[in-house]
Amino acid sequence: MERCLTLAEQAWGRTTPNPLVGAVVVQDGQAVGEGFHPKAGAPHAEVFALRAAGDLAYGATLYVNLEPCNHHGRTPPCTEAILTAGIRRVVVGMVDPNPRVCGRGIERLRTAGIDVSVGVLSARCEQLNEAFVYFVRTGRPFGVLKYAMTLDGKTATRTGHSFWISGEAARARTHRLRAFADAVIVGGNTVRLDDPQLTVRLVEGRNPLRVVLSRTLALPAEARLWLDQTTIPTVVFTGAQGDPQMRANLERLGVEVQVLDELTPAAVLEKLAARPCLSVLWECGGTLTWSALTDGSVQKVICFVAPCLVGGTQAYTPIAGAGFEKMHEALRLEQVRCEPIGEDWMVSGYLF
Amino acid sequence: MERCLTLAEQAWGRTTPNPLVGAVVVQDGQAVGEGFHPKAGAPHAEVFALRAAGDLAYGATLYVNLEPCNHHGRTPPCTEAILTAGIRRVVVGMVDPNPRVCGRGIERLRTAGIDVSVGVLSARCEQLNEAFVYFVRTGRPFGVLKYAMTLDGKTATRTGHSFWISGEAARARTHRLRAFADAVIVGGNTVRLDDPQLTVRLVEGRNPLRVVLSRTLALPAEARLWLDQTTIPTVVFTGAQGDPQMRANLERLGVEVQVLDELTPAAVLEKLAARPCLSVLWECGGTLTWSALTDGSVQKVICFVAPCLVGGTQAYTPIAGAGFEKMHEALRLEQVRCEPIGEDWMVSGYLF
Repeated sequence: MERCLTLAEQAWGRTTPNPLVGAVVVQDGQAVGEGFHPKAGAPHAEVFALRAAGDLAYGATLYVNLEPCNHHGRTPPCTEAILTAGIRRVVVGMVDPNPRVCGRGIERLRTAGIDVSVGVLSARCEQLNEAFVYFVRTGRPFGVLKYAMTLDGKTATRTGHSFWISGEAARARTHRLRAFADAVIVGGNTVRLDDPQLTVRLVEGRNPLRVVLSRTLALPAEARLWLDQTTIPTVVFTGAQGDPQMRANLERLGVEVQVLDELTPAAVLEKLAARPCLSVLWECGGTLTWSALTDGSVQKVICFVAPCLVGGTQAYTPIAGAGFEKMHEALRLEQVRCEPIGEDWMVSGYLF
Repeated sequence: MERCLTLAEQAWGRTTPNPLVGAVVVQDGQAVGEGFHPKAGAPHAEVFALRAAGDLAYGATLYVNLEPCNHHGRTPPCTEAILTAGIRRVVVGMVDPNPRVCGRGIERLRTAGIDVSVGVLSARCEQLNEAFVYFVRTGRPFGVLKYAMTLDGKTATRTGHSFWISGEAARARTHRLRAFADAVIVGGNTVRLDDPQLTVRLVEGRNPLRVVLSRTLALPAEARLWLDQTTIPTVVFTGAQGDPQMRANLERLGVEVQVLDELTPAAVLEKLAARPCLSVLWECGGTLTWSALTDGSVQKVICFVAPCLVGGTQAYTPIAGAGFEKMHEALRLEQVRCEPIGEDWMVSGYLF
């Protein structure tokens, strides 16, 4: 199952709207075939593993981190391929929450006399596909909030200077998060202050859709986000007050502008879900972060803490806005983990 | 040597101006006597260990985390006691930086034909006595800055509410830090906002001297810090502008008030060093913390991070003041460690 997860990760960020799946065929304790689902429309992991195993699949065991499908989608059902290959036993990491699958794949295999075990390394299988699982269950993109701060809780000095808080290892990890996210979201302030690219450069991987929320469209006429629109698209969401001239300017540059009746994080996510985006990465400043958190648009928080102190009453902090009045109102993270990333520390946890 | 450190810690916070020292006498692989230095004026660890070993000390090995003294202080030199007991070998954790000792104890033992090894578990020995070592080398108290913040870098909500950020385990750890510190320091703001006790309640240990810095003496007439002055004294440092009426009020309550020409953290530490205080714990708010950091009054930083988010542009942060202008000016911690303390994380490091 470990191997299935490693195989599955090879398609990191490329499978939307499908999950990450890896499969291994084992005959007499030897792996005789393996594969992973590379992208939507391509065959599923099980098919690649069975193909690689060939005749050796007969009487073998198939390991797969997610329940095999039993329906005709863009590809034929995996359950049929498994039965045809003569697999004797199937070990499944977790049940597929997709209502079109949800238990039916396992049922079909069991009915055909195959020995099926479910729930091996299930916590890790669930985590690998946490965005997929959340999207399938709720219809909303899985929101990850990422920020980097000093050990005194600052994301930029009083002058707005923030390069660099984190070390290279933490920045590479951020790029890996971007390579997974279907969209990365910032606010107008971040465009004005940092002129970010929001692309994947420090690791291998595909670039996410770049999304800007700007109520007024008081955005720079020139910004790195407006470049390369043919290969790395940017969408700007605005409200009714969005400056029409800037809108025209952006559209001339090839930037898509969407006008919403009410510009809220949740409304933007609804639009992104339709594309579909299964997961979004919030890389915005404190004000937008507060809005995203309080309207339920963040499910996971990833904070890089740099062991340095910058001070400043006027310095920027990761979450601004109104803030809670009492400490006991604070949003508490669950399943908190902390690990060293280069010279920094990465603290992560969940908000469900 | 492990055992020496454990023994030494039994006098945690009670040995000022002396170091924490533990000693074990080993004969034929068996510990036959052990002891620790309980407080200034009492015999040294070696003496207790040798007494406990009695005749079994003859030909034995003595382990001690700090070089034995060779001078007459309030007690006779330990080197003589070691020689009289017939110890054959001495294993020393670290050389005593005290100029009255510094190598002379080891020299005296070697001259007398004793086999002396130096530098066993020396990093841990140095850390146990880091305050003593710093004080002896510089004449200034070792400054520890301690604060607790949320994962978004807040020490209180916008209304000043801060109970409780950390869990009970982290609070107990703070009390352990207080039990070690010779003085714990806050500013007037903390007295006004939190009305703290700054005592040791969640662990066994002695209370530190409680110190308040207040330029104006605009302090509450009634505060928990002004109570119990006979058993837990408080000192208030102020400047020339300190309100004389409040000063009289405090003195009537038994609180010591010291007026400094210039009220700076460094000036206060100079006064505290004379008492003597070898170590101080800064438990102050962001403004005073910034002053203490930038005038070199902090050598170690201990930050408890609670896995919760409170938000707020107006919320309090651990280090306020002017702050640095550029991120690369930030004070970087060395030898950073991160460990779980209950549901919180403790990040610590050094500023030398």
